[in-house]
Amino acid sequence: MANIILFAIAPVSAVIALAFAYGFYRKIMKLEEGTEKMVEIAQAVRQGARAYIKQQYKIVAIFFVFAAIFLAFLSFVLKVQSAWTPFAFLTGGFFSALAGFIGMTTATMASARTANQARDSLDKALKVAFRSGSVMGLVVVGLALLDVSLWFIVLHIWLKYSLGVTTVTMLSFGMGASLQALFARVGGGIYTKAADVGADLVGKVEAGIPEDDPRNPATIADNVGDNVGDVAGMGADLYESYAGSVLASAALGASAFLFNESFAFNAVILPMVIAGIGILASILGIFLVRTKEGATQKQLLSSLGFGINTSSVLIIIGSFVAVKLLLPGNIWLFGSIVIGLIAGLIVGKSVEYFTSESFKPTREIAEKAKTGEATVIIEGLSTGMISTAIPVIAIASGILGAFAFAGGFEPGKMIMGLYGVGIAAVGMLSTLGITLATDAYGPIADNAGGNAEMAGLPEEVRQRTDALDSLGNTTAATGKGFAIGSAALTALALLAAYIEEVKMGMKHIIEQGMQLPEFLQSFTSAELVDTLSIEKFMDIFQVHLMNPRVVIGIFIGSMMSFVFSGLTMKAVGRAASDMVDEVRRQFKEIPGILEGTAKPDYMACVEISIKGAQRKMILPSSLAIVIPIITGMLLGVAGVMGLLIGALGCGFILAIFMANAGGAWDNAKKYIEQGNLGGKGSPAHKAGVVGDTVGDPLKDTSGPSLNILIKLMTMISIVVAGLVVGFSIL
Amino acid sequence: MANIILFAIAPVSAVIALAFAYGFYRKIMKLEEGTEKMVEIAQAVRQGARAYIKQQYKIVAIFFVFAAIFLAFLSFVLKVQSAWTPFAFLTGGFFSALAGFIGMTTATMASARTANQARDSLDKALKVAFRSGSVMGLVVVGLALLDVSLWFIVLHIWLKYSLGVTTVTMLSFGMGASLQALFARVGGGIYTKAADVGADLVGKVEAGIPEDDPRNPATIADNVGDNVGDVAGMGADLYESYAGSVLASAALGASAFLFNESFAFNAVILPMVIAGIGILASILGIFLVRTKEGATQKQLLSSLGFGINTSSVLIIIGSFVAVKLLLPGNIWLFGSIVIGLIAGLIVGKSVEYFTSESFKPTREIAEKAKTGEATVIIEGLSTGMISTAIPVIAIASGILGAFAFAGGFEPGKMIMGLYGVGIAAVGMLSTLGITLATDAYGPIADNAGGNAEMAGLPEEVRQRTDALDSLGNTTAATGKGFAIGSAALTALALLAAYIEEVKMGMKHIIEQGMQLPEFLQSFTSAELVDTLSIEKFMDIFQVHLMNPRVVIGIFIGSMMSFVFSGLTMKAVGRAASDMVDEVRRQFKEIPGILEGTAKPDYMACVEISIKGAQRKMILPSSLAIVIPIITGMLLGVAGVMGLLIGALGCGFILAIFMANAGGAWDNAKKYIEQGNLGGKGSPAHKAGVVGDTVGDPLKDTSGPSLNILIKLMTMISIVVAGLVVGFSIL
Repeated sequence: MANIILFAIAPVSAVIALAFAYGFYRKIMKLEEGTEKMVEIAQAVRQGARAYIKQQYKIVAIFFVFAAIFLAFLSFVLKVQSAWTPFAFLTGGFFSALAGFIGMTTATMASARTANQARDSLDKALKVAFRSGSVMGLVVVGLALLDVSLWFIVLHIWLKYSLGVTTVTMLSFGMGASLQALFARVGGGIYTKAADVGADLVGKVEAGIPEDDPRNPATIADNVGDNVGDVAGMGADLYESYAGSVLASAALGASAFLFNESFAFNAVILPMVIAGIGILASILGIFLVRTKEGATQKQLLSSLGFGINTSSVLIIIGSFVAVKLLLPGNIWLFGSIVIGLIAGLIVGKSVEYFTSESFKPTREIAEKAKTGEATVIIEGLSTGMISTAIPVIAIASGILGAFAFAGGFEPGKMIMGLYGVGIAAVGMLSTLGITLATDAYGPIADNAGGNAEMAGLPEEVRQRTDALDSLGNTTAATGKGFAIGSAALTALALLAAYIEEVKMGMKHIIEQGMQLPEFLQSFTSAELVDTLSIEKFMDIFQVHLMNPRVVIGIFIGSMMSFVFSGLTMKAVGRAASDMVDEVRRQFKEIPGILEGTAKPDYMACVEISIKGAQRKMILPSSLAIVIPIITGMLLGVAGVMGLLIGALGCGFILAIFMANAGGAWDNAKKYIEQGNLGGKGSPAHKAGVVGDTVGDPLKDTSGPSLNILIKLMTMISIVVAGLVVGFSIL
Repeated sequence: MANIILFAIAPVSAVIALAFAYGFYRKIMKLEEGTEKMVEIAQAVRQGARAYIKQQYKIVAIFFVFAAIFLAFLSFVLKVQSAWTPFAFLTGGFFSALAGFIGMTTATMASARTANQARDSLDKALKVAFRSGSVMGLVVVGLALLDVSLWFIVLHIWLKYSLGVTTVTMLSFGMGASLQALFARVGGGIYTKAADVGADLVGKVEAGIPEDDPRNPATIADNVGDNVGDVAGMGADLYESYAGSVLASAALGASAFLFNESFAFNAVILPMVIAGIGILASILGIFLVRTKEGATQKQLLSSLGFGINTSSVLIIIGSFVAVKLLLPGNIWLFGSIVIGLIAGLIVGKSVEYFTSESFKPTREIAEKAKTGEATVIIEGLSTGMISTAIPVIAIASGILGAFAFAGGFEPGKMIMGLYGVGIAAVGMLSTLGITLATDAYGPIADNAGGNAEMAGLPEEVRQRTDALDSLGNTTAATGKGFAIGSAALTALALLAAYIEEVKMGMKHIIEQGMQLPEFLQSFTSAELVDTLSIEKFMDIFQVHLMNPRVVIGIFIGSMMSFVFSGLTMKAVGRAASDMVDEVRRQFKEIPGILEGTAKPDYMACVEISIKGAQRKMILPSSLAIVIPIITGMLLGVAGVMGLLIGALGCGFILAIFMANAGGAWDNAKKYIEQGNLGGKGSPAHKAGVVGDTVGDPLKDTSGPSLNILIKLMTMISIVVAGLVVGFSIL
């Protein structure tokens, strides 16, 4: 009974999060949007963002319909999946989309209001921007945890499905979230960078007008991009990460304590309880963030840091209590949580070191701008590559530590160790409510600056929004660290969940009286399958490094990260070219634009970004769906596991490389713009702009999509595991 | 007895290869070097190249001394290695260095002579260039096969060591070759690209003087670079690949037929026999290459193609006979050889498609030059990433096919399948004698062009050498395909050999009465270890994908490819900056350089490239040595195997990406220079030059070093396997 009360923390705190989000939203809406011009601009951005999201959700809906039909086929015809799978899948996609939509709507409502408050003071502006970021953070964690706990209540508590069936069915909810997140990241990423690159190339370089100038036809598209890419895309992304880590750990908890029903229940709810505690701690942390007028960047940062750190400490204490109450025999699991938090912190700090203009690496890139574009690019690429070392070592040590703390090195206890890895990911993401708030407020401040610029507000307003924006870059680096780090841990936990799903598939085949493949025919009963440890499983399925199926899988998985990144990057290049053509056309065909006497056709540019994004997101996203299925049918379980680990190993590192190279180029340019090495307009600045432009698709389109790609491929493999085990060729 | 005669093919054909190489060399030396100016320039290049090689070998020698002492420690103190190991290691390094040195000397002798012959006719010039390329090709295969067969004769036939001990000891010969190759590739690659980039940035861009202009102080360094990087570096690289594939297959042959002594002997000599047949076929092919004056590029290409194709057909026939005679019960092994050849061909063709200006991808990169540097870079990066798909699928299918043909899918026969993969690599590289000739003649033609330019020869001479050079680019693409493809297959075979070495280490520990780690203590006798199949081995050592040691190993291995590439790339950037400073200094301080009245200080620039290369090659190369040892000591056998497969999976793909992106940028620039999209001097051309410069370190320094890195790490792991199995922590 005590554990049911503890479990209640999850849905209750989720509802509280949503309530606070609504409260913040109401408060924001009460503020004035500012001058007529400001309202007009905000309206145009909102309209553009809505137009995009509408189109995007239409295409995504088509994919979801097909995927749901396929899942229904697995569930009702082949019967290798629970009947609830298609529905869980749909809710995952729906809530992820909803979280993105709410976050984006709030952001588009908040930008003019932030600019308007910035006319008064920095503190007021920070409050609005951070509050609307908090709406996003709380909506993401609230909806995710609500959905997770509702499904758990329905399937296990109400319908009395076993913990195994319940948690595995819930993983298809994660698949829905991942699929929708991939579209949001890829589509949003293409959209925003096409607009950004296109606007810069013609506006800044050719026409010589400043950023966010209302005479630039692509400027609204650019501002829309921040909302659909950096806000809605990021929201869906982190919704997926958050839900994924909880779901993966829950599934492993069910298996780790398979022969101990009551502890199994506790192990399954532990990640949800930790997430719930995290939500409460985040809300408290959010209220601690405040600052005074005239605060330095350092003070602003320490204000945010104070909020986040307090939340972290509360979570550490809270999860110690939770572990103690739920799994008193495994109190060391608590060490896994702490290790997860520390690893995330190290990754975040290293991202900051390699991408902030306060440190050597970025300054050296800026330095190279003196010898031209080529040397800037070479230095940025090499810095990005070298920068992968610390995060990889941190995450590797984190995995080892989390595994060891959970007791994974004891013979036959591997599954416990992997459960520990999953719990570490949950710990790492438990502060998401507040860290996401600090992440999401960056683009809001950015947009507020755009609004101020276009509306012709006084210089000091722009200075205030710039201060907020630049602060956002640093906090976003830490946030990225947690997102990347948790993705690696979650992916590993999901891989372990994949094994459970394969076993589930075997049991199902046995129960249906169907034929198992030859090498599995010694398994004549479901009970025998249950006794199969991970070690034994790996032996029987030959998931070892000399099996050519595994090796080929690893090759293809590694390749997938590269090909996927190449496709998304190319899409940005192509759409940006179209944008350049359109802006050039408007400058030529609409007289008076550059003089400010005629209004450019903003929506035409928005339309181009939309079309480019929609068309080009389909191929890479489809690959993510199709490749795991094909690999499974051709190479079996061993091939799939190779594929997933290859995609994880290579994709994880490629993602860090892209994020850091892109971030460093961006800030190297900013460093020059601050007046160093010749300042704005110098040849060094020109070279810096080239570096920044190259980095744009790397850091905002391809890089962040890779994390989702890795998890989506794993989720899909999990869902089709039954099919693969029964029907694969090799 | 019959098999001893067959074995004799190996040393005999090796000696024949060396004899032909000497004959070709003598013929080349009989030709005139041309005008006084031409002789002077050739002398300067020779002098620079010698100066570099001397310095490089000095540093490498220090590394070799330390490594040999370490190996002697393993052999004589810890006694976990055969007493011959340090000596085999040293000869591998020595012969690899010798092959590079001879190839380079020939090339520096041939360039002026090629230019001089080009004054008469294209055919004569082709003959000299191709002949000196052939010297390189034949010296590499001759020395490698001679060394391999001599060690085999000494250890097995003369000293009567068992096949297992013999082949494993010989692997340390491969380690020597790999270590020296890594230094040659990294050092040579940094040297050549620092000079190239530096010369271009100041000479072409700042001073506006053409390529290879004698007024540019860095021009001799640039020409020296072609010899030390593209000739000596490539020679050492392919020596290592060639020897590695033969040695890995031989080691697997010994294990695959462990319980059938006579077949084991045949299986061990089969790769050497195939290599011997390949040498004879290559010599024949070389004599078939000839062309007429006024030949089009197509005719030139078909002439080279005719030589290579004839060799390939002869090898296919010859190896069918060899398999039939040596392993009549495994005639399908022949299929593995053919599959290896086909996979190599597909990789080569795909490299050509993605990097030749005759095809769409490179033209689209050129097209993007119209919108500036950033879009060229984005398009090149994305094209390079997408281009990894075909090679990976080809090699993956090749592995699967070679494994299946050799019977690896039969239960308990995995080792046979891996032997088949090794044999496929041998088949792929068996034409190396002739393919390397077509590879190495490219830089010779390039240097001849430089000589002609600097010596002020008439325009038509330069046109002829350019025709040869551009042809070299296409054949080099195919050559690269074989090098990359064979590296992946060889690395996999070496990984299997690693297992054998671990078993050898276990036996040794048992025989010495020392303590095995706890999980291995059921192995109480050497005979028990011998019965350990690969499958069982992987189970006991838990080399499966859920073991965190394996996963962490994979992460670190993948990271290593990125960090190593980043370090080498950065080294090029730094050394290029120094070069820029020196050239600027000379222009300023030596009056009359630009007017052609004063001679620049060529050797000062050579010195800078030397220093940059020597200093910066140490860190990345040391990492390659240290990381496998540390990983082994910390994470044990499972961690090492993860490390190696991670490095292979990620490094293989990163290498293709770099090679193709760099090649495509290079040819996109050439396409523009041919007069397209505005031609030379247009803004598009400027953007194209930036792309080319960025691609330089990717395709000629970091990319080609990765193949060696992967194999060197494997070789080192093999050599320290005994240490790891006895003393690792986890």
